[in-house]
Amino acid sequence: VSSYLDRLRIVLVEPAGALNIGSISRVMKNMGLTQLVIVNPQCEVYGEEATRMAVHAIDLLATARVVPDLPTALQGCTRVIATTARDRAIPTKLETPRQALPWLVESNEHTALVFGREDSGLTNTELNYATRYIRIPVGSEYSSLNLAQAVGICAYELQMCVCNIDDLPNPQPNIPQPLDVAPVELVEGYYQQLETLLLEVGYLFPHTAPHRMEKLRRLYNRSQLSPNEVALLRGILSQFSWALDPDKLALIAKKKD
Amino acid sequence: VSSYLDRLRIVLVEPAGALNIGSISRVMKNMGLTQLVIVNPQCEVYGEEATRMAVHAIDLLATARVVPDLPTALQGCTRVIATTARDRAIPTKLETPRQALPWLVESNEHTALVFGREDSGLTNTELNYATRYIRIPVGSEYSSLNLAQAVGICAYELQMCVCNIDDLPNPQPNIPQPLDVAPVELVEGYYQQLETLLLEVGYLFPHTAPHRMEKLRRLYNRSQLSPNEVALLRGILSQFSWALDPDKLALIAKKKD
Repeated sequence: VSSYLDRLRIVLVEPAGALNIGSISRVMKNMGLTQLVIVNPQCEVYGEEATRMAVHAIDLLATARVVPDLPTALQGCTRVIATTARDRAIPTKLETPRQALPWLVESNEHTALVFGREDSGLTNTELNYATRYIRIPVGSEYSSLNLAQAVGICAYELQMCVCNIDDLPNPQPNIPQPLDVAPVELVEGYYQQLETLLLEVGYLFPHTAPHRMEKLRRLYNRSQLSPNEVALLRGILSQFSWALDPDKLALIAKKKD
Repeated sequence: VSSYLDRLRIVLVEPAGALNIGSISRVMKNMGLTQLVIVNPQCEVYGEEATRMAVHAIDLLATARVVPDLPTALQGCTRVIATTARDRAIPTKLETPRQALPWLVESNEHTALVFGREDSGLTNTELNYATRYIRIPVGSEYSSLNLAQAVGICAYELQMCVCNIDDLPNPQPNIPQPLDVAPVELVEGYYQQLETLLLEVGYLFPHTAPHRMEKLRRLYNRSQLSPNEVALLRGILSQFSWALDPDKLALIAKKKD
């Protein structure tokens, strides 16, 4: 599956934080990305700081390519997307990662996703190598994302694209349900036992029983009991039955007469 | 707009990395989240390392709440989602952030998204406070995401929900949910009463109690009890308590000694 992402390069232009490079290696490997290309790094790429943050992605970090400029990094690529935090200086409309990134994953050729410097992003000249532009939506006036976070979010969106290519079943819009749901008649057996016992202990009276039982049925129906759970609940009722005081039950029965 | 996210708590359980706490503060502020709650931190929360990574989110870091345990962190919350990297020990289906997180944003009440320890995640007991479970999809055998990256990806998805808030799909197409969901501590009161009573009648034994109670919690959590339903269930337990045979209870207590 991850071969979809093997043709996709993550390109960092002049990163200055070695910790970021390590973190980026890690999250790339997590998300099935393999190609890291670093343009004119302003920090140590293979040193202790990057290695520490890469954890089990040191293999990816070790094969990261260092190149002198962006055109070299993009050689052979047919689709290039650049990321930016700013509106200005962009000729075309900015898209979200979700809108633009499937375009990279769909391609059978080499593609690239380009990230700029931690402090100043990409220059206008660099932006012009791209065909589409991404801005990660933010929710506050503090819009400056950490570089590794920005790559992480895009890597996650790319992985989500790959998941969707294989049509991951995602039919579960609601509260997660158990795998096997008990058939109606099994659950009904529990309701009957519950009602009988609640009448016995005087919690229900014949005239209130239907209304109260309706509430209880709704509550349990919502959780879509599994057969094991029905057995569990019935076991509890049986234990209560056994432990109940016969004298008190007799008293209740008398009152009801 | 970000007021949608002001009722949503990011809860970190026993984080051990101060750098992570700082990074998380930053990406939360980027994405319009404001409530950070830290359960029993294993590192300095407001120190130099966290502050350095928070950059312009030191205000958010400074107002982060430190609490002793998860129930305290979740007080007043009606919807809780837990994150996990593992399949096992989760009774119900794992969802992607995209599937599950809109459920938190749609709520008008307090909600929480819970993240576990960097190395070992959340315990089963902690997982049981949640109703839904998220696993961030990964694309390789190296599935261990950095904690700050995991929070960043979820924060991004939450921000995307807010952006799309006007065309959110109908939140609850299938199982009808109660209009008002009881806060965690109210439901907890029921679980405590249930466990005490089940021990009393000899259905539970001290060594089996945690496992059985876990199953019962899951079952009831799925149905998202309303305050009235909690009262109904507790009323039933009280009636059972009253009607129980003291002789049998004494017998059970004797056996257990």
